[in-house]
Amino acid sequence: MKKILVIGAGRSTSSLIQYLLFNAEQEGWFLTIADQSKELASKSANNHERAKAIAFDVNNEEERMRLIDESDLVISMLPAHMHISVAKDCVKYKKHMVTASYVSKEMKELNNDAVNAGVVLMNEIGVDPGIDHLSAMRVIDHIRESGGKLEAFETFTGGLIAPESDNNPWNYKFTWNPRNVVLAGQGVCKFIQNGKYKYIPYHKLFRRTEIIDIAGHGKFEGYANRDSLQYRSIYGLDDIPTMYRGTLRKPGFCRAWDVFVQLGATDDSYIMDGSESMTHRDFINSFLAYNETDSVELKFKHYLNIRQDDVDMFDKFVWLGIFDNTPVGLPNSTPAQMLQCILEKKLSLEEGDKDMIVMWHRFLYEQNGEHKELHSSMVVNGDDPIYTAMAKTVGLPVAIATKMILNGTITTPGVHIPISKEIYEPILDELENYGVHFEEKEVSPSFY
Amino acid sequence: MKKILVIGAGRSTSSLIQYLLFNAEQEGWFLTIADQSKELASKSANNHERAKAIAFDVNNEEERMRLIDESDLVISMLPAHMHISVAKDCVKYKKHMVTASYVSKEMKELNNDAVNAGVVLMNEIGVDPGIDHLSAMRVIDHIRESGGKLEAFETFTGGLIAPESDNNPWNYKFTWNPRNVVLAGQGVCKFIQNGKYKYIPYHKLFRRTEIIDIAGHGKFEGYANRDSLQYRSIYGLDDIPTMYRGTLRKPGFCRAWDVFVQLGATDDSYIMDGSESMTHRDFINSFLAYNETDSVELKFKHYLNIRQDDVDMFDKFVWLGIFDNTPVGLPNSTPAQMLQCILEKKLSLEEGDKDMIVMWHRFLYEQNGEHKELHSSMVVNGDDPIYTAMAKTVGLPVAIATKMILNGTITTPGVHIPISKEIYEPILDELENYGVHFEEKEVSPSFY
Repeated sequence: MKKILVIGAGRSTSSLIQYLLFNAEQEGWFLTIADQSKELASKSANNHERAKAIAFDVNNEEERMRLIDESDLVISMLPAHMHISVAKDCVKYKKHMVTASYVSKEMKELNNDAVNAGVVLMNEIGVDPGIDHLSAMRVIDHIRESGGKLEAFETFTGGLIAPESDNNPWNYKFTWNPRNVVLAGQGVCKFIQNGKYKYIPYHKLFRRTEIIDIAGHGKFEGYANRDSLQYRSIYGLDDIPTMYRGTLRKPGFCRAWDVFVQLGATDDSYIMDGSESMTHRDFINSFLAYNETDSVELKFKHYLNIRQDDVDMFDKFVWLGIFDNTPVGLPNSTPAQMLQCILEKKLSLEEGDKDMIVMWHRFLYEQNGEHKELHSSMVVNGDDPIYTAMAKTVGLPVAIATKMILNGTITTPGVHIPISKEIYEPILDELENYGVHFEEKEVSPSFY
Repeated sequence: MKKILVIGAGRSTSSLIQYLLFNAEQEGWFLTIADQSKELASKSANNHERAKAIAFDVNNEEERMRLIDESDLVISMLPAHMHISVAKDCVKYKKHMVTASYVSKEMKELNNDAVNAGVVLMNEIGVDPGIDHLSAMRVIDHIRESGGKLEAFETFTGGLIAPESDNNPWNYKFTWNPRNVVLAGQGVCKFIQNGKYKYIPYHKLFRRTEIIDIAGHGKFEGYANRDSLQYRSIYGLDDIPTMYRGTLRKPGFCRAWDVFVQLGATDDSYIMDGSESMTHRDFINSFLAYNETDSVELKFKHYLNIRQDDVDMFDKFVWLGIFDNTPVGLPNSTPAQMLQCILEKKLSLEEGDKDMIVMWHRFLYEQNGEHKELHSSMVVNGDDPIYTAMAKTVGLPVAIATKMILNGTITTPGVHIPISKEIYEPILDELENYGVHFEEKEVSPSFY
C-alpha cells in the first residue's frame, strides 16, 4: 500500500481528492487528508475506506515530520509560501512531493539535496502554472521537431465566471482567492517583444491590454503577468524575440479595474487612518481631492476621465455599491483590504454559479522559410460549486503526476516543473478524459 | 575649551563650519572635522588654529567611540540612516548631538536613555525639516496666544535654482542629492483636508499640485510630501481639520516630471535586463509598447497624451536628450539609476550657478468669530557655489543650536525637534543676520 499525504483540503482540492479516492483501490493507495479544520478534512475523506482525515497544523514541526515520515508521497495544497517547510522534511525523510505552485527561490535551492536524496519535488503542475507548461511545451517541441523556429510565444490564462452564471456588469466573479485578485499585477511587468525588453509599471498595466478572440467563446482581454522573461530559458527559448505571459478577463474589466489602481485603492502598503469608521463612500472619497460643492460621483468621473455618457463604465461602480453610505467596518486596514471587503459583497460566487478556465497560446514560427502562426485554446467549465473548473484544472494534473511518480513513470529526482515530453504527453492525454483539451488552429500570420 | 566633533564635511556643511570657526575664539570652541575624505575635511578646517581635520570611517566602531568620548558635542551631517550608531555612542558617553535629519523610529526609541544620560539629541534643525518647524511654530504659538484657533496649516519648501542661473526649460537643477530627487514622493502621500483624510498614490502625485504666488518671486507649484498627518500631534494641532506639507517647484515641472513617473522610469525596485547596452533612447523605448512603424518620439507623445502643439512640454524632453542614441553605460541598474544618470548630464549645477530655497506657509484661523488667513514666506539665495542657499539654511540652524546647547541655553535632555519658543525665538532672530527672514502678510481668507 502506497501512502499519500494530502496537506490542505480547501476548495481547490475537490477534484484532486476525488481522483485519488476513485483510483485508490486499483492503484493500492491510502490517503491521509490533513487540514487545519478536521471537519473540512473529514468532508473530503467522505468515509472512504482508503482515506482518513486528521486535524493538522503545518507549524507543528513534530507532527509534520511524523506524518511525512509515515508517507510515500506528499501533496502540498497549502498557500505557496508554506510549502518550503514541508519540502525540507520531504527531502529529509526521502519522500516525493507535488505542488501546484511556482518554484520559489528556497525551493530551487533544495535541488541538490533532493537529487542526493533521490526524491522528486514536482511543482507548477496545476493550471497556471501547470497546464500552460504542459500544453505549450507540447506545441513548442512539435514545432522544433518539424524544423520550425519559434519567433514569438504568447500565453494567457484566466479564471472567470461561466457564461451561464455571468450576470453582472463586470462579467467577473471571484472564482479563487479574492486577495490575490485585488493585488494582481503589483510591481513591474517584464516581457520581450521583437527583441526589445519591455517594462510596464502597475499603474499602466490595465491600460496596455490585448484583445483575444477565441472561436465559439467570444472576445477576451489580456494583461501582462509579472515576469515573462524567466520562462525563456526554462522553455529552452533563450533567443526567442517575443515572450509574453498574461491573464485573461472579459473585455471592459481592465479599464474599470484600472480605476481602482488609479485611485490607489489596491495599495496594500499602508494602514488608512480612520478606516474603522469609513463607509464605502468615505473610502472612495479619501482618494479624491476635497471639494466643497461637487459630489463624490462627480469628482470620481472627473478624476478618472469617465465621460458623462460612458454609462456602461460608470454603472459598473454604481452596481458595486462603492458610493453607498454602508460602513466597511474594518479597523486598521490597508486600502486593498478595504476594497476586497467591499468587492466581496457583490463579486462572490452565488449558489449554483459555475466558473470557467480559459487558456490561450499564440505561437509564431518560421518553417522552411515560411512564417506560420498557430493558436491553441482550452476552455473548461465547472461542473458545479464543488467540482469547479478551477478545482479540476488545478487538481487533476497534480493527481495524475502523483500517480506517475508512485507508479515509477516519473523517477528523475530533483526540483522539477512539468516541461518534458515524458511528463506532458501522458498527463495531457489523460486530462482529455476529463474534458480538458486544446483546440489548435493554424491562422495566417498576423504580424508579418 | 568645548570640543565639537563635526562628522561629515560634504557640500551642505560649508556655512555650518564657517559659523563654528568664526565663533570659535569667542565661544571657546575647538572643532574636529571628520570625513571619509581627509582632503575634504582639511579644506573645511582651512588651517584654522581652532580646528583639526581627520580621515574617519563611521563604521570603525573603536575610532568612532574614541572620538565621541573626547568631544563635548557631536554634529552628525552623515546621510540620515547613519546617525543612529553615532547617537547611541553619544548617549553612552553622555555627549550632546545635533542633526538636520528627520527623527527615525530608532532615534525616537533612544529618548529614555538620552533623558537618563542627561543628553540633548536635537534633530530636524536644518531647513526642511528645521526652519519650517521654527517659523511655523512661531506663528502657531502667536495665533494661539492671541486667542486664535488654527483651522488649516499648509507648508511648502523647495530647493530650486536662483532666477539668475535659471537657464533651462525645466526651471530646475539638482541643488542637492539627485537620487533623492528622482525617488521623491514614492509610496503614498497622506494629509487631512477639512477633516477628511486624503491619500494620493505616487502615480497621481505630480498631477495633484497647487499653485502658489509669492509676491516678488512669482508663481510656484507644490506637490504633497509623504506624511503630513504625524505633524498634527507634534505641533499640538491634533484636531486641526487641514494639514498639508509639500514641496515647491517652478510651474510646469510637475507635469513634465509626471511623464517619468507614468513611464515607470523612476522605479528603483528592479534591475533592468540589458541595461548595460541601453542608450537614452532604448531606455525610454523600453517603457513604450512595441510598434513597427512609429518613432519613439511619436509613441512617447501618444502614450503620455502630449499634444503635437504642446511644444513647451515636449521640448523639455528633447532638451534632456532622452531620445538620443547616447549610451547610458550602467550595467545591472534600476530604472531610477538609469534616469538619474541621464538627468545629471543636463540638470547638474554649472560653474557659478546659484541656488535658492523657497519656503511658504499658509495659516487659516478663527479669531473672535472672524476667519483670517496669514501667509509667511522665506526666499534665500545662495551667495556662491560654496555658500549655497542650501548650505546656509541647513547649516546655520544646526550651528546656532550647537551654540545654544554648549552655552547652556538649551538644556532639556532627550530626543527633540525645535518646536518650543525657547528654541525658535533666538534661532530665528539670529538667522535674520544671515538674510534668512520671513515676510508675513494677512490676506482675505480664500477658503470661505
